[in-house]
Amino acid sequence: MIETPYLLFLGDAPDPLAAKVAQGIKDWRPEYAVGQFRMEGCKADMGLPDMSLAEAKAAGCKTLVIGVANRGGVISPAWKKVLVAALEEGFDLASGLHNLLRDEEDLAAVARACGRQLHDVRVPTVDYPIANGKKRAGKRMLAVGTDCSIGKMYTALCVDKEMRARGLKSSFRATGQTGILITGDGVPLDAVIADFMAGSIEYLTPDNDADHWDLIEGQGSLFHVSYSGVTLALIHGGQPDALIICHEPTRDHMRGLPEYKLPSIEAVRDMALTLARVANPACVAVGCSINTQHMSDADALAYCAEVEARTGLPTVDPFRHGAGRLVDALIAV
Amino acid sequence: MIETPYLLFLGDAPDPLAAKVAQGIKDWRPEYAVGQFRMEGCKADMGLPDMSLAEAKAAGCKTLVIGVANRGGVISPAWKKVLVAALEEGFDLASGLHNLLRDEEDLAAVARACGRQLHDVRVPTVDYPIANGKKRAGKRMLAVGTDCSIGKMYTALCVDKEMRARGLKSSFRATGQTGILITGDGVPLDAVIADFMAGSIEYLTPDNDADHWDLIEGQGSLFHVSYSGVTLALIHGGQPDALIICHEPTRDHMRGLPEYKLPSIEAVRDMALTLARVANPACVAVGCSINTQHMSDADALAYCAEVEARTGLPTVDPFRHGAGRLVDALIAV
Repeated sequence: MIETPYLLFLGDAPDPLAAKVAQGIKDWRPEYAVGQFRMEGCKADMGLPDMSLAEAKAAGCKTLVIGVANRGGVISPAWKKVLVAALEEGFDLASGLHNLLRDEEDLAAVARACGRQLHDVRVPTVDYPIANGKKRAGKRMLAVGTDCSIGKMYTALCVDKEMRARGLKSSFRATGQTGILITGDGVPLDAVIADFMAGSIEYLTPDNDADHWDLIEGQGSLFHVSYSGVTLALIHGGQPDALIICHEPTRDHMRGLPEYKLPSIEAVRDMALTLARVANPACVAVGCSINTQHMSDADALAYCAEVEARTGLPTVDPFRHGAGRLVDALIAV
Repeated sequence: MIETPYLLFLGDAPDPLAAKVAQGIKDWRPEYAVGQFRMEGCKADMGLPDMSLAEAKAAGCKTLVIGVANRGGVISPAWKKVLVAALEEGFDLASGLHNLLRDEEDLAAVARACGRQLHDVRVPTVDYPIANGKKRAGKRMLAVGTDCSIGKMYTALCVDKEMRARGLKSSFRATGQTGILITGDGVPLDAVIADFMAGSIEYLTPDNDADHWDLIEGQGSLFHVSYSGVTLALIHGGQPDALIICHEPTRDHMRGLPEYKLPSIEAVRDMALTLARVANPACVAVGCSINTQHMSDADALAYCAEVEARTGLPTVDPFRHGAGRLVDALIAV
């Protein structure tokens, strides 16, 4: 568990896109995003107060989160002075970068000397059990997609936000690095050992109140040959009561697989439902979430209407249009 | 790659079942099983010549394989003297036990000093790639099952043996610990990191001659909620041309999951085929393999005939009746 709130480290981000982890935290957990730390030449700006380490400490920040990615995911030597000073000031550090904080000898030594934590969220820290498939109390929604990187995390976060706004009980359950940094907790599923994948999701979504919703971040796609096993572990470990099918209409092939076309929304719905019902016979598909970021307003609305007519399921871009209709459908389950 | 042939270490096996890894090697690779090493009180016997380490060395053995499992999968202190002596005599050691040879300080030190290898086949030794889904040359068969531990390894081995007997080109491709010890090579899939599962199977079954068959050992089941993700990674990484559906008729629930009934053979066939065709649209189901070990001769034949009538697929227990009809069906693909 990563201690909150955060000071978001933007470093020397060459452009706003390089700071998309910080952007995700600021978009989805503004209450955790107390301030930003920018180095000379930083081209990203979250619109948060620029703070020195001492100011952030005084404002209650507990963890400095590396909210920026370099090309190659490395920990830049230019950042080291700040990171070392942050440990000395009493901050923990958190990172989702490919290169690990713990593998930097200087950071590891200072963290040890100062009694601070280094959180490398790409690495599982729990010995997850093997899944036992036992029915758990509470409700669970899983976002499944026609492809990878198609809006499954944003869909679950939009639903969570709408549920919270209505005073309903919900938890966004992160299964990837950015989601974990947004929430401070979760399972880095793509780094879990095969035998324990489904068990890690059971661990992530334990028994809960009967009217509580776990909103589980999906990963991969049943139709993406590189990662489909991860997706199926989510479906069986999550034992969802409800699925939301995610799609991005402008993509012309599966991410990273130029020879593979995207499946239809209907094919994903039918396959995911059949498999989900092995673990939870009551599972239903409640809606479709369309990532319309590359479409005009008119095209976005027209496309959603077309999918809704075809599938009979409420269909929206929850980030653009709000998740109200998806939440209506979930609470009707 | 584990060097062959083997001296099979049976240790102080309390009963024949404890030596089932040795039995598997002896059944399936008798040419690798040159001799056995038994300690006082050993209750297992492969019917192989009992050899001292020196005799085994003279007979050409390269590796001492731990062919016996203790309760708990530990490396028994009682074995240590033999294992150390074997390293000193110039043998490598191989083990599929849960506890690792490399974690035993004495064995690690002696192996280092003598320049010998310790093969812990539970641990991947390769940095597998992420699957790319590209079509590979050659033919591939994957055994899929209604449950775990249902005869998928024996099915692939039976087909391999029959293909070899006919002079056809084939390779058994091991994906589990026992299979790896039988063949000396393979992927310990249940221990691979989630993101690399499908890629490890692409690595295991590379381009080959157009008339060569990879016979891939299956793992888990699409309907087994603990391990289904591993199974789907095999289906998409293996891009099989042919599936053989494996079933054990006397089992009344999924292994380790008392609340889950086994799916029908037809349900497994249909689900596995639909998913397999994502990676290989030409994939077909060619036969059913029934594990009849708990049935009388008459019941076994009657059950196979019933499944064959129902599914229209050649249906045999290949270990009991021979794999001829399965091979006929494969070469007709």
